[in-house]
This record gives sequence, C-alpha cells and structure tokens, in this order.
Amino acid sequence: MPEITVALGERSYPIHVGGGLLADRPLFQGLLGNHAAVVVSNTRVAPLYLPGLLDTIGSAVAATHVLPDGEQHKTLQTMNGIITTLLEHRMGRDAVLIALGGGVVGDITGFAAACYQRGIRYIQIPTTLLAQVDSAVGGKTAVNHELGKNMIGAFHQPAAVVADIDVLRTLPPRELRAGLAEVIKYGLIRDADWFDWLERHLRDVLDLDAAALQTVVERCCHIKAAVVAEDEREGGIRAILNLGHTFGHAVETALDYRGWLHGEAVAIGMLMAAGLSHTLGMLDIQSVSRLRALLEQAGLPTTLPRGISAEQMRAHMNVDKKSQAGRLRLVLLKRLGEAFVTADFEEDTLMDVIRSHLSQDSGGH
Amino acid sequence: MPEITVALGERSYPIHVGGGLLADRPLFQGLLGNHAAVVVSNTRVAPLYLPGLLDTIGSAVAATHVLPDGEQHKTLQTMNGIITTLLEHRMGRDAVLIALGGGVVGDITGFAAACYQRGIRYIQIPTTLLAQVDSAVGGKTAVNHELGKNMIGAFHQPAAVVADIDVLRTLPPRELRAGLAEVIKYGLIRDADWFDWLERHLRDVLDLDAAALQTVVERCCHIKAAVVAEDEREGGIRAILNLGHTFGHAVETALDYRGWLHGEAVAIGMLMAAGLSHTLGMLDIQSVSRLRALLEQAGLPTTLPRGISAEQMRAHMNVDKKSQAGRLRLVLLKRLGEAFVTADFEEDTLMDVIRSHLSQDSGGH
Repeated sequence: MPEITVALGERSYPIHVGGGLLADRPLFQGLLGNHAAVVVSNTRVAPLYLPGLLDTIGSAVAATHVLPDGEQHKTLQTMNGIITTLLEHRMGRDAVLIALGGGVVGDITGFAAACYQRGIRYIQIPTTLLAQVDSAVGGKTAVNHELGKNMIGAFHQPAAVVADIDVLRTLPPRELRAGLAEVIKYGLIRDADWFDWLERHLRDVLDLDAAALQTVVERCCHIKAAVVAEDEREGGIRAILNLGHTFGHAVETALDYRGWLHGEAVAIGMLMAAGLSHTLGMLDIQSVSRLRALLEQAGLPTTLPRGISAEQMRAHMNVDKKSQAGRLRLVLLKRLGEAFVTADFEEDTLMDVIRSHLSQDSGGH
Repeated sequence: MPEITVALGERSYPIHVGGGLLADRPLFQGLLGNHAAVVVSNTRVAPLYLPGLLDTIGSAVAATHVLPDGEQHKTLQTMNGIITTLLEHRMGRDAVLIALGGGVVGDITGFAAACYQRGIRYIQIPTTLLAQVDSAVGGKTAVNHELGKNMIGAFHQPAAVVADIDVLRTLPPRELRAGLAEVIKYGLIRDADWFDWLERHLRDVLDLDAAALQTVVERCCHIKAAVVAEDEREGGIRAILNLGHTFGHAVETALDYRGWLHGEAVAIGMLMAAGLSHTLGMLDIQSVSRLRALLEQAGLPTTLPRGISAEQMRAHMNVDKKSQAGRLRLVLLKRLGEAFVTADFEEDTLMDVIRSHLSQDSGGH
C-alpha cells in the first residue's frame, strides 16, 4: 500500500491510498493505538461503509455520530452536536475523531477536532473522489455562516488520511466527474505531465479501472502534499490550489448552491481562468483548447449555467476570501503546469472573458 | 512603558503594561498599522472604556460589537454573532479584532479571531486584574458547552496585549481580590521571591498604589510569558499554571458557577493543593501557613463554600480536562516556587485534605 507523507514537521502525517483499506485492521491498529475513537459519518455514507469500518476497528469505537446529508448542514450547530457526543462519552484530549464521508463530513469533523478541548487528533477517511484528492488533505476545516461559505474554521491537520479507492465504485458517476475537475486542476497548476497522462487515460478513470484510480489519487495527493508542505496556512503558493475557485464560488453563489456540484463550478471556473490567462498573453491557445476538450471528455461544463449574467458573476466574485483590501486577485496560468496569483488585469478584459463563457441558451439574461 | 515579549517564534508578541495606555495613539498606530479593526466589549465595560478607546483609534474602527455581560453568554452562539458583524462589515483576513474587557470577552473574542476565515489577528485589552495577569496572555481561547466549561476553543495567540493598569481603579474590590489569587499562584508555582514581595506589599496593591499595580502586572506577565514560551500548547510544564484549578473548577461546578468568582475558587483550590503537597511530605507546613495568611490578607476564602460535601467535590474533580485516561492528575508543590503535575497520591489522602477544608458552618452537609 503506497504511502505519501505531508511533510509538516511535528504535524506531518501519512496518506494511505489503496484498495480494501477500510478492512485493513493492522493499518487502523497502527493509527489508533489504544486511543478511543468516535466515528462521524452521514446518512448517505454510513449505510454503505460504517458497518464495515466498525467491523475493522470496532473495539476502539466509543461512539458513532451520523449527520444529515448535505452542505446546508455544514454549520456551527452541527459541529456542536459532535462536541455533545464527545462530552456525553467523556472523551478526553487523547480521543481520536474519524471522518467517514465526503468533503462536508470531513470539513465539519475536522473543525470539531480542531475545537474540542482546543484540539484533538482526527483521521480522514474520504469517500468521494473530490475528498480523496483534495479536501481531506491539507488541514483546512470549516463550517459555513449564513453570510458566507467556510467563514468559520481552522487549519488543523489530520493525523492520517486513509483513501480507499474501492469506495469510488459506489460513487454516483456525476460525483466522480465532478471530482475530476480537481484532478485536472493539479495538472494545470503544477504538473504538465499529469495533464498529458489524463488526456491519455481519462477513459480508464471513467471506467473505474483500479490501477487508473490508484494513480489518480496518489498523484493528486502527492501534488497537494507538496504544495501544503511549502505553505501550510496559505500565505503564498498554496493559493494556486484555488485555480478556478473564485469563478466557481461565484457560480455556486449565483445558483444558491443548488443544481451544480462544486467540481462542476470549478471546471467552468478553470476554463475562464485559462481564457483570461490567454487573453493576457500568457497561456497559449492550444492549451486552452486542450483543457476544454479534456473537460468535455470528463463530462464537465464548459459554459456558465443558463440565466447567469456576466454582471452577476462579477459581483459574486467580490466577496471571496481571496480578495485582499478590496482588490480582486485571481489564480492564473503562465503556462500548462504553472500557476500564479495576480491582481494585474483590466476589469474590461475580465468581463469579456466572463461574457465569452455565458451559456448560448441564455444570452446572458 | 515597559514591554514584555512572549517568545514564540513567528507567533511572538508584546505585552504592554502601563498607565494611560488606552489613550496612547502611537502605541495603537504601531499595532494596527492601516488594518481595519472591530472592537468587541460587553455592556459593563463598554460604557467605561469604549468611548476613550474609540477616541484613540477611531479612524481604524470599522465596527463595535457589544456583548451581554456574564459567563453564561460565553457560547458558540455569542461567538457566531461576532462573526456576523465581521461579515456584515466585509472584514477580510487582514482585519484585526480587539477584545476590550475581562476574561469572558477575551476568550470569546480570541476564539472568534481563531475561527474567522481560519484565523485573523486580535489584540487583547484586558480590563480586570485576572485578565491582565492571566487569561489575556498565552493564547488560550474558548467558549463553554452546556456539558462543560471551555470545551470548544483554540490555541490562538494574540498579536499584542495592552494592559492599562489605570482601569484597575474602577474594578469592584471583590474582583481585584479575586485576581490576586492568580497573582499569588505565580509565586507558588515559579517564584518564591515573588511570594515574599506579595507578603510585604499586598497592602499597597489593595490600596491601588500605581507602582505596586505596575509591578504586579509586569511580574505576573513575565512569569506567564516564560511558561507559555516553554510549552505553548500545554503538553507539559504549562499545566502548572493550573495549580488549584481542578479543585477550583469542582467548587465552581458544585455552585453551578454562581456565588463565587473564579479567583475565589482558585484560592481555596490552591490552599488544598498546598495542603495535599504537605501531607505527601513535600511542602513544609510553614509555607502552607504563609499561603493561608496571604489569602486571608487578600480577603480570599480559605474554606470551601457551605453545603458542599467532600464527596461532591471529589466527583466534580473527575470531569476536568486535565484528567488523562480516567486518572486524576493534580498540580502540587514540591516547595514554595516549584510546582509539578502528578497522579501519585492515595485517594484517602486526597479525601482527608478535602474534608479538612470543609466550611465549619456546614459540617459537610
């Protein structure tokens, strides 16, 4: 079983990627030792994988806590419910939380671990492609506030990430494709060879070929681990992981977080970032075309949702966390495999790029 | 104006101690730069000091947020209200929170700063003796859960602490005396000379002599800064700062946090810890007597509240965060000026010590 390390000194931790890991007793024995664990999952994932996990680590589990499914439950109140369970079972500072689920479960559970008695250990067991290649790695935890997504949170690294690629087989195809947006992102921002590999092997990934899935999760975790190790708290380089996300969050906000998945919004966002990069004289047009073709092959959107205007998009881009001192900053591409953060672009140029990605069906109305 | 540094590498910060600091424009100009600030206070402190502070830093203040007064408001919900204010005023990651108040305001505000967008800077302006010598320094932030005090929180160091000793003149005398419990604690755990000084000068402190107050706040902050610098996240030595607190929390819990102030509970707690230390053959009896005399001179309790039984006390000591793996650990004294953490004492011995501190009026019933 291949192991990747996120190198952060005393906060370093392993990422385990492989098949059958949820049944791997020695692995969990090594991770948990004789510490009590509380497993957090949700109503969608728990029926699929909680019984198997309990079979593997049962004797260590003091309690399970099953959340309702959905981003709308990613709140302080839900986090507080986990704290209640920990206190009811008299968990001490040496207890371990385990997040079994997708990004929402991981974000809430990680934040609960960050806050409980000012910080306890937690293990991420991501069950979506998106979570395995992105949100479970790097220690960003958060819940939403009614006025903004991920506005309440902490940097709190997990003690380990266990990515069992077998669970990807039960993932709805649309969620697998949405996860591929982040997979493609790693090629764009950091690794042109990875982009090439995806062009050649995307079919295998979509067909859930085990070797291909293993390669995808490993490679992406390697890249994310390297970026996080360089800049744990996003003071600089880590921001490139947000390629397409400022555009994407604007799409999600405009749709009130309904209808499109996060990865789908990021997909069109990356295409707009690539388009703007080209317009500014950096990324060549062939790379933009290759990206469009790869997104299409992955079944991801290449135009904005119907009914969203360019002005709406632009307005929603302003409230993003990434803007500093009122000035919009975006992650753009110098070339395939190299990203950077800049505020150096004309407003008109940005609006032209947004307009050129409006849905043909809507005409921007 | 004397300045103390809490030496924590890139998280190092200054503690400013002096008179008239709330009116010191250059000081705050240096601390805030051109960053926007949001001031959090409560209904008791705001009328006294918020106008003056706004006069000093007015142009930098984007908003003020006044909390209701009292420990019962130290909740996630109150913290969420601060986040709402930050979002309504579109504060970014470079904004600075300012906590103007006692320990409760500082704990909630610090936790809001720890969580907002995964961490922004904050400045502590403690307005009680307890907060100036203890809670404002060291980065422990938290709110309470209905099942436990300070159970949801973070280690998040302030960017600076500004302790204006002039504000201690408006403090109710009982609160000043409660703060003295922590002041005495520093002598017990780390600095026998400091204990000597207090025996000689306590009268001046109680009379609010400016030079004496300055010495008290400076010396205590020096000691706390040194302990925190050694062990930021309480993996070891920092635990000695909890001398008397496990006993004290049990008192507070038994009283449902009504009637006694935290410092008063800590006072009797320290006396019990000293008594146990003596019974175990460490601390000499003269030191115990000196502590009792000093507490009495400070107007602090030396017996448990009426109506609390030894069994109640003992039961409430079990749920403390400091207990590991079910075994009660206590901070005890080897000698005046040297503390350590131990679980090495007989249950009967502990019970005898608790019984010997029961109120004479109640007989333990």
